[in-house]
Amino acid sequence: MVHFPQLPFGLPDDQDDDKPREECGVFGIFNDADAAAHTALGLHALQHRGQEAAGIVACDGEQFHSHRGLGHVHRVFKSEKNTIRLEGSLAIGHVRYSTSGDPALRNVQPLYADLAFGGIALAHNGNLTNALTLRHKLVEQGCIFQSTSDTEVIIQLMARSQKVSVEDRLIDALSQIDGAYSLVVMTEDTLIGVRDPQGYRPLVLGSHGDATIIASETCALDIINAEYVRDVQPGEMVVINRDGIRTLNPFPQQGRRFCVFEYIYFARPDSLCEGLSVYEMRKNIGAELAREAGVEADVVVPVPDSGIPAALGYAQASGIPFELGIIRNHYVGRTFIQPTQKTRDIGVRRKHNANRKYLEGKRVILVDDSIVRGTTSTKIVDMVRQAGAAEVHLRISSPPTAHPCYFGIDTPERDKLLAARFDVPGMARVLGVDSLAFISVDGLYRAAGLPGRDNANPGYCDACFTGDYATRLLDNETPSEMRVVTRLNERRKTG
Amino acid sequence: MVHFPQLPFGLPDDQDDDKPREECGVFGIFNDADAAAHTALGLHALQHRGQEAAGIVACDGEQFHSHRGLGHVHRVFKSEKNTIRLEGSLAIGHVRYSTSGDPALRNVQPLYADLAFGGIALAHNGNLTNALTLRHKLVEQGCIFQSTSDTEVIIQLMARSQKVSVEDRLIDALSQIDGAYSLVVMTEDTLIGVRDPQGYRPLVLGSHGDATIIASETCALDIINAEYVRDVQPGEMVVINRDGIRTLNPFPQQGRRFCVFEYIYFARPDSLCEGLSVYEMRKNIGAELAREAGVEADVVVPVPDSGIPAALGYAQASGIPFELGIIRNHYVGRTFIQPTQKTRDIGVRRKHNANRKYLEGKRVILVDDSIVRGTTSTKIVDMVRQAGAAEVHLRISSPPTAHPCYFGIDTPERDKLLAARFDVPGMARVLGVDSLAFISVDGLYRAAGLPGRDNANPGYCDACFTGDYATRLLDNETPSEMRVVTRLNERRKTG
Amino acid sequence: MVHFPQLPFGLPDDQDDDKPREECGVFGIFNDADAAAHTALGLHALQHRGQEAAGIVACDGEQFHSHRGLGHVHRVFKSEKNTIRLEGSLAIGHVRYSTSGDPALRNVQPLYADLAFGGIALAHNGNLTNALTLRHKLVEQGCIFQSTSDTEVIIQLMARSQKVSVEDRLIDALSQIDGAYSLVVMTEDTLIGVRDPQGYRPLVLGSHGDATIIASETCALDIINAEYVRDVQPGEMVVINRDGIRTLNPFPQQGRRFCVFEYIYFARPDSLCEGLSVYEMRKNIGAELAREAGVEADVVVPVPDSGIPAALGYAQASGIPFELGIIRNHYVGRTFIQPTQKTRDIGVRRKHNANRKYLEGKRVILVDDSIVRGTTSTKIVDMVRQAGAAEVHLRISSPPTAHPCYFGIDTPERDKLLAARFDVPGMARVLGVDSLAFISVDGLYRAAGLPGRDNANPGYCDACFTGDYATRLLDNETPSEMRVVTRLNERRKTG
Amino acid sequence: MVHFPQLPFGLPDDQDDDKPREECGVFGIFNDADAAAHTALGLHALQHRGQEAAGIVACDGEQFHSHRGLGHVHRVFKSEKNTIRLEGSLAIGHVRYSTSGDPALRNVQPLYADLAFGGIALAHNGNLTNALTLRHKLVEQGCIFQSTSDTEVIIQLMARSQKVSVEDRLIDALSQIDGAYSLVVMTEDTLIGVRDPQGYRPLVLGSHGDATIIASETCALDIINAEYVRDVQPGEMVVINRDGIRTLNPFPQQGRRFCVFEYIYFARPDSLCEGLSVYEMRKNIGAELAREAGVEADVVVPVPDSGIPAALGYAQASGIPFELGIIRNHYVGRTFIQPTQKTRDIGVRRKHNANRKYLEGKRVILVDDSIVRGTTSTKIVDMVRQAGAAEVHLRISSPPTAHPCYFGIDTPERDKLLAARFDVPGMARVLGVDSLAFISVDGLYRAAGLPGRDNANPGYCDACFTGDYATRLLDNETPSEMRVVTRLNERRKTG
Repeated sequence: MVHFPQLPFGLPDDQDDDKPREECGVFGIFNDADAAAHTALGLHALQHRGQEAAGIVACDGEQFHSHRGLGHVHRVFKSEKNTIRLEGSLAIGHVRYSTSGDPALRNVQPLYADLAFGGIALAHNGNLTNALTLRHKLVEQGCIFQSTSDTEVIIQLMARSQKVSVEDRLIDALSQIDGAYSLVVMTEDTLIGVRDPQGYRPLVLGSHGDATIIASETCALDIINAEYVRDVQPGEMVVINRDGIRTLNPFPQQGRRFCVFEYIYFARPDSLCEGLSVYEMRKNIGAELAREAGVEADVVVPVPDSGIPAALGYAQASGIPFELGIIRNHYVGRTFIQPTQKTRDIGVRRKHNANRKYLEGKRVILVDDSIVRGTTSTKIVDMVRQAGAAEVHLRISSPPTAHPCYFGIDTPERDKLLAARFDVPGMARVLGVDSLAFISVDGLYRAAGLPGRDNANPGYCDACFTGDYATRLLDNETPSEMRVVTRLNERRKTG
Repeated sequence: MVHFPQLPFGLPDDQDDDKPREECGVFGIFNDADAAAHTALGLHALQHRGQEAAGIVACDGEQFHSHRGLGHVHRVFKSEKNTIRLEGSLAIGHVRYSTSGDPALRNVQPLYADLAFGGIALAHNGNLTNALTLRHKLVEQGCIFQSTSDTEVIIQLMARSQKVSVEDRLIDALSQIDGAYSLVVMTEDTLIGVRDPQGYRPLVLGSHGDATIIASETCALDIINAEYVRDVQPGEMVVINRDGIRTLNPFPQQGRRFCVFEYIYFARPDSLCEGLSVYEMRKNIGAELAREAGVEADVVVPVPDSGIPAALGYAQASGIPFELGIIRNHYVGRTFIQPTQKTRDIGVRRKHNANRKYLEGKRVILVDDSIVRGTTSTKIVDMVRQAGAAEVHLRISSPPTAHPCYFGIDTPERDKLLAARFDVPGMARVLGVDSLAFISVDGLYRAAGLPGRDNANPGYCDACFTGDYATRLLDNETPSEMRVVTRLNERRKTG
Repeated sequence: MVHFPQLPFGLPDDQDDDKPREECGVFGIFNDADAAAHTALGLHALQHRGQEAAGIVACDGEQFHSHRGLGHVHRVFKSEKNTIRLEGSLAIGHVRYSTSGDPALRNVQPLYADLAFGGIALAHNGNLTNALTLRHKLVEQGCIFQSTSDTEVIIQLMARSQKVSVEDRLIDALSQIDGAYSLVVMTEDTLIGVRDPQGYRPLVLGSHGDATIIASETCALDIINAEYVRDVQPGEMVVINRDGIRTLNPFPQQGRRFCVFEYIYFARPDSLCEGLSVYEMRKNIGAELAREAGVEADVVVPVPDSGIPAALGYAQASGIPFELGIIRNHYVGRTFIQPTQKTRDIGVRRKHNANRKYLEGKRVILVDDSIVRGTTSTKIVDMVRQAGAAEVHLRISSPPTAHPCYFGIDTPERDKLLAARFDVPGMARVLGVDSLAFISVDGLYRAAGLPGRDNANPGYCDACFTGDYATRLLDNETPSEMRVVTRLNERRKTG
Repeated sequence: MVHFPQLPFGLPDDQDDDKPREECGVFGIFNDADAAAHTALGLHALQHRGQEAAGIVACDGEQFHSHRGLGHVHRVFKSEKNTIRLEGSLAIGHVRYSTSGDPALRNVQPLYADLAFGGIALAHNGNLTNALTLRHKLVEQGCIFQSTSDTEVIIQLMARSQKVSVEDRLIDALSQIDGAYSLVVMTEDTLIGVRDPQGYRPLVLGSHGDATIIASETCALDIINAEYVRDVQPGEMVVINRDGIRTLNPFPQQGRRFCVFEYIYFARPDSLCEGLSVYEMRKNIGAELAREAGVEADVVVPVPDSGIPAALGYAQASGIPFELGIIRNHYVGRTFIQPTQKTRDIGVRRKHNANRKYLEGKRVILVDDSIVRGTTSTKIVDMVRQAGAAEVHLRISSPPTAHPCYFGIDTPERDKLLAARFDVPGMARVLGVDSLAFISVDGLYRAAGLPGRDNANPGYCDACFTGDYATRLLDNETPSEMRVVTRLNERRKTG
């Protein structure tokens, strides 16, 4: 799910600002006595996919119960009351990334609507590339939108569909839509999971006793001790109700394009994506990077936490010792006092500190997963230098990020991307490193067990590296005056 | 505005529970540099018409700014920030009566929607009697409702109207609607006030320098030192924009039916309704009551605060001294500790206390404005007896309330109304008074300067006393399964 | 209880700003199954004596349970949890007037301390005139004060007393103290009420079944249906425990000096003070005022609510009709939006509105209880003029307030008092009235049934009118550098 | 700082429950334009030493400004307003570990008092072993305590000291005290750091331009880019003011007893304690453990995060590959929904998940830092087994924890300690591992570069392993009825 661009976004954490951000995680569970509680745990396991808001809708067979709020899952669902209220054996949930302030509350998913046939709730991970165009058409026809999220287009299309069954209305709606979506949808008696034909975002199927689960990642199954059954396939619609589990494939087939950045950064290392271990994939990339861009050095130091697996792979392949030369403070909140410019300049130390003993006088290979704007990398390199490193060689476990994502990842505009502004030597100069290397695109595919990138049918979406977008981007051609999604600037208060 | 009946309502204050409750107040102002601040003050003056929630939408010519919240006006708009944010010279606002809890937030008015022509906001005092029927038809056609209030039907009808101008869309929508409505509507450059053809609820026009104001009562003009121009007429639509003020009369004419209970209880005593002083009208009723139901006594004691003007009228007409024999504590909140049944039994003293010196040994004429369930009256009579009154004669400045209201007043179901369960002598026994008298229906009309009730064309709505409803009540015939407005039980959290 | 003058005080409500303010109310109950709940109700009845903060300490015979907070009683004790927690059959409580912000929390009474013999809690209405002097001496001796209130001096003196019993320690402490105090004190098994030798502030004894109650006013007995037994006498200490009720008179006798302003303004009209009905006293003053300062007019109009009884008395004595020519809006919060100067100028209408019909063309006698700064009176007179009054004659039911109070009332500094700046004709000019009259000092005593003021032994404290202070004011002679009570500016947060 | 044992402690996080907990961190800065902001950052770096509450007191040379609150540092100081208010170039701060609920607020440090010479603030890391005894004596003498923390005894003793200067009063107070304390103290112009004669808890001196800093750990210097100067020595008092830095050694010398658990678990790995790198020390222990208790295996897996350095040391020494076979979810809040027993049973997965690919079929060496109750270890071993591990060998980088700590660490009572209930083979059975080994006491000293433990003068406090307490434990001999510190159960509300 994404918001349309004219909405004000919250200021991100100083450091995470320099990472691309996953925009959502979804979870659904059918036939479980503790449906809402287990959904809350599942969302907690998916917290890395969205830290700003969380919501759950449960159904007891007649009434739907919803609780949504801003903040981390454990805050939104902190008191027992909140989930006990959410009665029913069927529930879906959603986490989304961070914007700030009250107005966003209307955008917190799952979205819910009373349609002619009954209630429906829907949670979305991904991004629709023609939502704006569809929205304008629908408003012309008399539709009133309550949120500013692209996801609501799906529900409005379902509401107006001439089809009878929920599945048919959903297929009808999705047939009009372009872009990336992994959805969980629920009615009063049915749970549906569906993935767009190219499978941009992950979605897995699990089971736990008599319960069936659909979730963004396998770690959300593990947290409740559920079993991983299989991935929902690109273009597949899984319909789960009392009659069992049915699979539909209602869309024309298209080439797979699973987001390779899920392996590099987004997904949790303990998850399996498309059957592959994310942690192993990261180690493989690190090892490949050691082969592609080896350098003599004393120590391999990850930028924690995300650089750790690739650094371990690099260290094991190169034989150079792995050390935690940088220590991360996990107590980091988004808001913090920084009254003067002077204090702001030292801000980076809030999250990372040099472990001086392991850097001083050393030739350091620093391993990180990606460079977006380069602001954080600059500060980290600086800190390592100040700690006395003799040489700093930066190795990045992704190719240069030079293109924006339109499929569910929040990236800065192109002219903010360091790799769009400089070539590799230029970037090395900006960052102040002795050497800089990125994994090659082919190296990335090799780490996934392929011989290299098959340009005709790559199998992964790597558009942020290659610019090769596999879906049309209709909204991108929309004139700017049409991009006004709402004229309302709203603030609500719960008294 | 009313909510549909299947929503849970908050527990009312122990005492007010026994009064009918006005359901809303509206305010709008055009061409005022302090539009939002003056709207907040206007709503504050209308606070008696709705204590549960308040909201303002302002427009700066391009963007709409909204702030809505639960609680009294001075709480929702307590910090300067909240109104300073609401920029623009055009604003409308709304107060509504009390339900409790978060879920209601989506129902707090003004409602806002982005329609094809731009933004629109709307605030409603009244109650539509065919809203449920229309809502079901609209949902069948693919409309998604965001609130459970009847008011949203108006906006959905406007969204789907084939008309071009805002006025025509609004006329189109209202033409399909039955019931009571005094509305303020705003677009980015226009303020519209409109009153249903029978004029059930009040609506007045005022001016203040270059600004034009529409409000439920004249007290909302007084608070900002604005001048009262005239009442908006039943069936009149007043359109205010840069071109000036235009009057439309788009609906077929019907007999006036201004709510007589506005005079008896709802409106503020310092307001003029339909040109009559509310305070004077109440005194007239008291005087009429003294003539109709005089009794020998030592003292006339009002049940404060609402019984005071009628008691003054009674005292002046009868020559019996007026005394504040009951003192009201104005520090009364809705929630309060009452841990045991024993404490609960003495609850009434929280609001009223006997001024013993003026009751002991006295023959007391107690004057109140109405009896609904009779629970509070019983406690008050009891308290007066305990204080040593020799006799208690209860005089009520309205006829017996024996029928529910469908035009914007919250009354209990018919079988809860004391006057629907007992005749006057029976009520006297239940209440434990020495004598009981209500003003007659004709007496009420005499107090308003008429010779009595003209049954062919009474001029006021007195349906709660007479059962004579002047508008069809379509929703009342709706089968109960259709009354389910939403299957969603929602709770939001602002983190 | 008062705070020392160097603490920042909250901004008062715009209008109440122009009234002297009572500074506290106290309540205690012994041997009651619902002790804390009944204390909360008692405090609610005393809310007019202090709106800023409230607290209760209860004891279950072993442990003391305390809950204290800022805001009105019904807010501080709004959930059942808060009082259910306060277990025990013995409780005391306190309300105090308004300062704003968090820091004040440490000053919210009852104060509690663990002394060598056990726990003790104490609540105070009044003001000590040598607290500052004692405090400095105690700090020199190694005492650490936790609050900035004068009341803590009493507890510190008790802690250091060489006496054995609680009563003796309390007598020991109070013997060192000058000024006004009506105290309720509790240990784990005893409730003590004590009033200073001159009896500046009220304190009454009541009973309710087996329970014994001590409270500031009788209205706090009425709310729980308790019986008024008698006033605690000046200089009397009442000790209540399982052995019954004992009376001690440990202090040298001094002339009575009950605060006459309690009758004029502070006490609730339904209370008895020193056996006299407050409402009747106010009516008597009004009648006396009619005799002293009669004028031909059409209507007697009170400034509501406090001017009502005197206006009634005036009207009855003069035969001129009483009318509510000014309507008060009771929904007034302390904080409210007033973004511009223009809006600020119209601020007064938030609380009072003219009932134009009863003022237009009329010769109006306006009755109010007091004039402090004169700011509100000016606005009210203005409003009455704007409503078309032909003449405005202002009658005040107290003598001119020309001197500050040191015995528990918050008055502005002398040079802010209108009566200290102008004579009566000068005040009339400032206020813009056709005539102005105050009740005479002797008239006040006549209203109380006395022949006039006995200057040798007046029986009431009327120092704010006469400047005749009956207690030495030691702290007033304290050099300013000694007035620094704490160097700490504190803010706490409950996370 | 510790609380006396009769206070109710909050429920700890499910997992951390099974770690000993550091009880405080302190920070002070002199002559810094951003004193409060830098103190907040310093406390943030010390967050691991106490997550429950945080406070700062700053002084502008005349007035002290305090802000204290419950929760993490970034929450307590989340808005800029909170620190901007804390003006002055001198500040001290404190973090403390977790108890829950409001009552604790009065215990949040720094403590502040107005003494005869002026204001003083104090923050304490450690635990006094005769505080209870002193407190009872002081109460007998008339002292009133406001908190229930042992720290207040120091301030009360200072208040009553006959000495003149602050230093002398502080020395006078500390001379009467037994136990562990690292203190920062401030007056309006002086910052003092002092460490108990045995130096149980850490305290370091740093500088940053013209500013001087005292902090619990060097990581609090790094975060503001300050330089580490040296450790404050056991028994040393450092007095910092405009005249410079003076060192006093007012106490009789005793043997050093720096807490060895600081190296094992408490201190941050990027800190230096007593000049040694904590990270290196942990790696050394791991390596020593590999030598002492080697075993054939396929993979070394740390229990993250605290087990990582020892596991790295073990892996490097043994040559067995290091893998993150357990992934930790850092988004863990204290409160979370767990509505049913079934869900509660799977609770551990909230924090840790198996990285199955690296455990399945493997012989796993699991490295953790300590075992307290053993509850978490059992769950982790279970999870590793469920993930398919062929063998599980648990290695612990501390000796068995068999004795409670009285010097500032929160440990469970002795009969809850697994090592007090079972021998090593017994523990292995309980935990379900194939083998279990702890580092030996001598091994621990070897890791610190010593030949082994010198029993006459060990140089470290290892009482939790050996039961060898180097300070008398007077309060432990106190009869239980004297342990009642307050009879007050308090709740405050900020309205």
